[in-house]
Amino acid sequence: MARRGRFITLEGGEGVGKSTLAAALEARLAARGVKAVRTREPGGTPGAEAIRRLILSPPTEVTGWEPIAETLLFYAARTDHLDKLIRPALAAGSWVICDRFSDSTRAYQAAAGRVPSEHIETLDRICVGDTTPDLTLVLDLPLLMARRRMTARANDKDAIESRVVSYHEAVHKAFLDIARANPQRCIVLDASLAADALADAAVAAIDARIGGDG
Amino acid sequence: MARRGRFITLEGGEGVGKSTLAAALEARLAARGVKAVRTREPGGTPGAEAIRRLILSPPTEVTGWEPIAETLLFYAARTDHLDKLIRPALAAGSWVICDRFSDSTRAYQAAAGRVPSEHIETLDRICVGDTTPDLTLVLDLPLLMARRRMTARANDKDAIESRVVSYHEAVHKAFLDIARANPQRCIVLDASLAADALADAAVAAIDARIGGDG
Repeated sequence: MARRGRFITLEGGEGVGKSTLAAALEARLAARGVKAVRTREPGGTPGAEAIRRLILSPPTEVTGWEPIAETLLFYAARTDHLDKLIRPALAAGSWVICDRFSDSTRAYQAAAGRVPSEHIETLDRICVGDTTPDLTLVLDLPLLMARRRMTARANDKDAIESRVVSYHEAVHKAFLDIARANPQRCIVLDASLAADALADAAVAAIDARIGGDG
Repeated sequence: MARRGRFITLEGGEGVGKSTLAAALEARLAARGVKAVRTREPGGTPGAEAIRRLILSPPTEVTGWEPIAETLLFYAARTDHLDKLIRPALAAGSWVICDRFSDSTRAYQAAAGRVPSEHIETLDRICVGDTTPDLTLVLDLPLLMARRRMTARANDKDAIESRVVSYHEAVHKAFLDIARANPQRCIVLDASLAADALADAAVAAIDARIGGDG
């Protein structure tokens, strides 16, 4: 039986460079002969992507979601993602690099939103169980720089990106609080670094925390 | 301020006559000057109906839902339904007659399915809180009669209707067990009665338990 793979999550606000780092990490691990599945939340499986569309681009007749309903949709998507992609990949010995996971729900829906933390921890126990990340890289970038990168993207903002600045400030603070509260699992990286230097720092964090060869 | 309306749920397996009874009850209450909103689950609001489609007629690339993910989708829909229709209607003094509610999740996903009951009760506390039904009418019909009615409908079966007979037998038993365990809230009605006689029995149950004038 293959040795269980390692589960790495990337967290942080919009525009901090999570998806660029995920791609760089996949390449760096591949160069070492470590197979990694790169995925994202909400989404990652057809079912979870269908739920993602409901959350971020709901049909016109759906006038948004109240906080608890939104959180349940995130966890339904997360459960599908765990059942059909993350757990099978880890069991087969692959590493999994996931762009956002439970910490995003903690930051957006609890800390910056209106969902009691204990509800999110309850849902997390039911859905995630012991499939918690081996390492979480929290990308820290001053909000102003993140906003500049997002403006440069110039895409249409989705239902969450378009929330007010104070909301995104609360999200930013929440990620740092989560990292501080979970020092065994989380490492904060300076996301103002150039992409290559950030990938170097991420690989160093992996080597320090979970070993480079799996 | 209007006196809070009463919340009545209709429960039972497929083909037992819940939607026919809901319509009859709405008319009987209207004849007494009691305004009632008739609704159903999963669904009842645009958001919940969108989730209903994901559960019962998922897009072709979605190969069904594992039990926990399905349950979370039901509760996301229920939360939207409560937030946007049930609680506002009750607060405005309307009665609400709902075709299926939490007992259906208990019967299908827990008793006949593979979701631990304690997970469903936890979700119910988070989402439903104290908006529990004032009265639940459980429609009891031998499975063979229910199957005959469903065949007569001759519509395409959805993802849940098409499950095997043993599953529907377990559901039937589960509803009776729920009624037995919650005698203050539930009344079992003989759904083999003709539609008018069944509506008479339902009205008698309402009068006995929660009073006819609200």
